[in-house]
Amino acid sequence: MGTEASPEAWPLDDRGVAYGDGLFETVLVRDGVPLLWEAHLARLARGCQALGFPIPVQHRLAAPLVDAPEGLAVLKLMLTRGSGGRGYAPPESPRPRLRWQLSPFAPDTSRWKAGVRVRHCRLRLGLQPALAGLKHLNRLENVLARDEWSDAEIAEGLLCDSEGRLVEATCMNVFWQRDGRLETPRLTRCGVAGTLRTELLERLSIDEVDAFPEVLLSAEAVWLGNSVQGVWPVTRLDGTGGELLRRWSIGADHRRLQALAHEPLGYPTRLDD
Amino acid sequence: MGTEASPEAWPLDDRGVAYGDGLFETVLVRDGVPLLWEAHLARLARGCQALGFPIPVQHRLAAPLVDAPEGLAVLKLMLTRGSGGRGYAPPESPRPRLRWQLSPFAPDTSRWKAGVRVRHCRLRLGLQPALAGLKHLNRLENVLARDEWSDAEIAEGLLCDSEGRLVEATCMNVFWQRDGRLETPRLTRCGVAGTLRTELLERLSIDEVDAFPEVLLSAEAVWLGNSVQGVWPVTRLDGTGGELLRRWSIGADHRRLQALAHEPLGYPTRLDD
Repeated sequence: MGTEASPEAWPLDDRGVAYGDGLFETVLVRDGVPLLWEAHLARLARGCQALGFPIPVQHRLAAPLVDAPEGLAVLKLMLTRGSGGRGYAPPESPRPRLRWQLSPFAPDTSRWKAGVRVRHCRLRLGLQPALAGLKHLNRLENVLARDEWSDAEIAEGLLCDSEGRLVEATCMNVFWQRDGRLETPRLTRCGVAGTLRTELLERLSIDEVDAFPEVLLSAEAVWLGNSVQGVWPVTRLDGTGGELLRRWSIGADHRRLQALAHEPLGYPTRLDD
Repeated sequence: MGTEASPEAWPLDDRGVAYGDGLFETVLVRDGVPLLWEAHLARLARGCQALGFPIPVQHRLAAPLVDAPEGLAVLKLMLTRGSGGRGYAPPESPRPRLRWQLSPFAPDTSRWKAGVRVRHCRLRLGLQPALAGLKHLNRLENVLARDEWSDAEIAEGLLCDSEGRLVEATCMNVFWQRDGRLETPRLTRCGVAGTLRTELLERLSIDEVDAFPEVLLSAEAVWLGNSVQGVWPVTRLDGTGGELLRRWSIGADHRRLQALAHEPLGYPTRLDD
């Protein structure tokens, strides 16, 4: 009942492509060392538990790292339930299949410094508590949301759920400060719980809240972040029609959270210049 | 900007496995002739339109049929957006990738005759109007729902949406007769609009309704159907805990709809024996 781990293509009958029946992780790697690795493994384990198939042993998941270049790279691990089963019904003894891609990487340092413009997306995320928080392979909602704009000036799009609550950005988590308190959306109904978010929740006092997007209009600072790109201060928020909703100047509050988030990623912690 | 169509494996960077960024069709083939083919093509075209990539020309989609065996087979067509793009953002000029599997098939004739036992699933479908009705590759909800039971006596599981409305079974559509009227759930928020369902809606007077699952308790007859299996009369409905909710005896009502549905599939239209 071994796990396949090789850099080959996906067989035609793999359930990953048939149903999106699997998980992935996108890991920042510095000089061959995977960052926030424990958090990535923990989320992958939660995903395997939720989908009901075994996680490969850790040394198989880490095997691609031997080929990592010097400097920064991104390791994308994809783990599917493998082949088999009758239609949607999973096989009784699944043989998960692991594949990976390892690519050199350079973060967009200008976004760290100057911040980013974001917009609200029209698409709303369906509620699915059984999959909430997981980085599974059913990502059509993210693809459709990301396809709502092509203006390179807009770095990210914010997503609400079908009941209107703010959830996340298309590939980043969102954080804000209100009356001096840090907050981020609760992700028990939908959304992906990023590993950087998990790290920040452990190290800082951040409240997980149910909030509507209007909360951002009264926020003192808003950030987007993930474990690959680090943290971007938000300097401008647009509505779904492209209309300006609010601007922020980057201040000490922005730089403080950014520094704390950049520490475990080995990114610069002093960006005021 | 051609479409690849070959029986090879999926490349590692295909968006079908990365994000479930694609569509599929499962077509009943009799002596090399695809049944309900126009309906399958129409749904695939709607899917391509919704996801924003071009549909291959029809002769490419039909190419696998030259290898079809005599008798019954199932053709599974899988069409993805192909490779490329930056993360979730689709490439500007996608090159969709087509793959297929062709397998001999034999329907379960005992289910036509004796009917089936079904149960309610615990999992609820998230609302996603942007994808409703389409047969896309994001099918984890169906996989998880189908994994709720392993008792071979239970043929299918019924799914409700996150607001409690009845939608479909895990891989079939559901129909019922109430006060002499045929009804089926409206599929504008979630669910897959089966090609057999489309065919029946065109040929018969069937109301598409928003209904809660209790509607079945007062129904005179309930059926499940799809374009591969044909139509199964439901003889017993269980709750999520396995408790009996209702039984039905198969009568003339059941056989009438079954006969109309089986006609375009070339399946038996007289099953009373």
